[in-house]
Amino acid sequence: MPKMYFLNSKEVAQATEEWMARRGVTKEQIAQIVMLLQKDYFSSLTLEECVEHVEAVLSKREVQNAILTGIQLDMLAEEGKLLPPLQDMIKHDEGLYGCDEILALSIVNVYGSIGLTNFGYVDKLKPGIIKKLNNKNSPRIHTFLDDIVGAIAAAASSRIAHRKQEEREVQANLPNAAE
Amino acid sequence: MPKMYFLNSKEVAQATEEWMARRGVTKEQIAQIVMLLQKDYFSSLTLEECVEHVEAVLSKREVQNAILTGIQLDMLAEEGKLLPPLQDMIKHDEGLYGCDEILALSIVNVYGSIGLTNFGYVDKLKPGIIKKLNNKNSPRIHTFLDDIVGAIAAAASSRIAHRKQEEREVQANLPNAAE
Amino acid sequence: MPKMYFLNSKEVAQATEEWMARRGVTKEQIAQIVMLLQKDYFSSLTLEECVEHVEAVLSKREVQNAILTGIQLDMLAEEGKLLPPLQDMIKHDEGLYGCDEILALSIVNVYGSIGLTNFGYVDKLKPGIIKKLNNKNSPRIHTFLDDIVGAIAAAASSRIAHRKQEEREVQANLPNAAE
Amino acid sequence: MPKMYFLNSKEVAQATEEWMARRGVTKEQIAQIVMLLQKDYFSSLTLEECVEHVEAVLSKREVQNAILTGIQLDMLAEEGKLLPPLQDMIKHDEGLYGCDEILALSIVNVYGSIGLTNFGYVDKLKPGIIKKLNNKNSPRIHTFLDDIVGAIAAAASSRIAHRKQEEREVQANLPNAAE
Repeated sequence: MPKMYFLNSKEVAQATEEWMARRGVTKEQIAQIVMLLQKDYFSSLTLEECVEHVEAVLSKREVQNAILTGIQLDMLAEEGKLLPPLQDMIKHDEGLYGCDEILALSIVNVYGSIGLTNFGYVDKLKPGIIKKLNNKNSPRIHTFLDDIVGAIAAAASSRIAHRKQEEREVQANLPNAAE
Repeated sequence: MPKMYFLNSKEVAQATEEWMARRGVTKEQIAQIVMLLQKDYFSSLTLEECVEHVEAVLSKREVQNAILTGIQLDMLAEEGKLLPPLQDMIKHDEGLYGCDEILALSIVNVYGSIGLTNFGYVDKLKPGIIKKLNNKNSPRIHTFLDDIVGAIAAAASSRIAHRKQEEREVQANLPNAAE
Repeated sequence: MPKMYFLNSKEVAQATEEWMARRGVTKEQIAQIVMLLQKDYFSSLTLEECVEHVEAVLSKREVQNAILTGIQLDMLAEEGKLLPPLQDMIKHDEGLYGCDEILALSIVNVYGSIGLTNFGYVDKLKPGIIKKLNNKNSPRIHTFLDDIVGAIAAAASSRIAHRKQEEREVQANLPNAAE
Repeated sequence: MPKMYFLNSKEVAQATEEWMARRGVTKEQIAQIVMLLQKDYFSSLTLEECVEHVEAVLSKREVQNAILTGIQLDMLAEEGKLLPPLQDMIKHDEGLYGCDEILALSIVNVYGSIGLTNFGYVDKLKPGIIKKLNNKNSPRIHTFLDDIVGAIAAAASSRIAHRKQEEREVQANLPNAAE
């Protein structure tokens, strides 16, 4: 009798964490991009806080699904196991191939459309770890992962914007809305 | 000196609730659509639970923004205050005008892409309150609101799918992933 | 010296056509779903016309990218070559895995948001070839392809709606807007 | 007897052109942003070509719908005719209000997800006319229009990327795929 399938959320979350680490991305590196995006708006923001927001983004199932799918495609391209011409398009980060942006957008949307601007901005500027992932002289392929990292940073920034508004309202003694 | 602007989340949440009520939509009516979508998957689901999930969706800022914007456009079209040809397109729920679906999609996305199917399904079938909102013989215009109601029901259904999975994992004594 | 990379659009288009065929989906089968969606609105619509609209959708680069990516993941899952837990989620068409809907949405969007409703509707109803692809007793895995087929049919339906409007305006002797 | 409703595409297109002009945005100003985004990739690109691509974007129905809807909301906010708290959020371009980004995204998507990065980039940098529209000391409100202008420029850039690829393939004597 075949083993019954049963989704195990803990395993999905752990796999996401492991795969990110194996592909060379730490939460701190993503948090540094968040810091870059938000420090002008919230001067007292610390890197520790940014890490917490990144962790909250990473705990979302939709985010985990997009990360695992993107990294899997990067890895298969690295091993040359995709069929041409998909292999070529992902290997060379073809400009007219947009499935990497599509998966990334699904991460950004987790905290609403206000993250769109930040996503596009870091995807163009390529700060910190994103630049490193984009190194075209490396044998590594990160066509999906560089966009994913930018999307996580953008989503974490949106989360910060929501939370800081809540704090402001508490301080101003406004009765706060649920959630 | 002009009054300083300061977003008041409580006011946005209250306005959303009031406008929905004034336009003739109750949480129970939306919950009935959720029930229709989910009862085959979760036989013990109650209408009360569905109402709670609808309330959770309605507590999200992005959802409130889309609701207020959509209802406002419906009301202005009803009063004939939009400029032609926008007035005509919204008044007649023109098939090639898609901004109502776009705003609705931003509601669905709050709980991820898994709600897309349910949204399209109820938007086509028009069960319960959605059919009533679509009555073309009424002087009322609900071009945006009918899609919004379907989107709220679809998002609530996605939320139920996520929560039921959590419950299953707790029952199976699986260590649960942080959410 | 390594061969210079140079995107060959013709190859991408041909690969899309071949992969669809190898996975058991013909343009006629998709056209039949389009017919089902549109026959009530345009009584004189023929299957040949529907095939032409399906072909127009398939000629778009974004559509080809999504199809190749989705089918590739289906095939790798079939061969058991994905890493767990991604392998399990795609193999079992896990309800909380939404990357298939995300790729499909990027196909629907090619002709605007008006296709959303049709996509959700066929994704739920599973007419014709979609039902066949969904057969859980088959060793084949079509977690991505069934959504992709529904998305192509929905996009073709949107294209028909746009074209029929143009025809109406020409018949009514309205000066037609450039498209 | 009430006048039969009949969508007139020409009127929608003309209204879009007029409203853009009245709100102070010319095609040349948008083309300058396109130039800024694309000149590093295509050194021979002229402003005239960019204007043509902007015009092609503006000829799409989905784009026209989003423009008319956004400008209408800006104008009503300017006249103080929206209900609070929507009036306040749009008037003050509230950071947690994302419906402007949502409508803009529907414009970007017309040429696929590859435009996302460019959209986010100009939305953050605010070059040329976008900066002018953002002047918070003006009595004018352009909460929607500034995002819309960035989205049109991003979509035109995507169109250029697609066309330049076609030209390269023709020059390389590759048989070109149908588009």
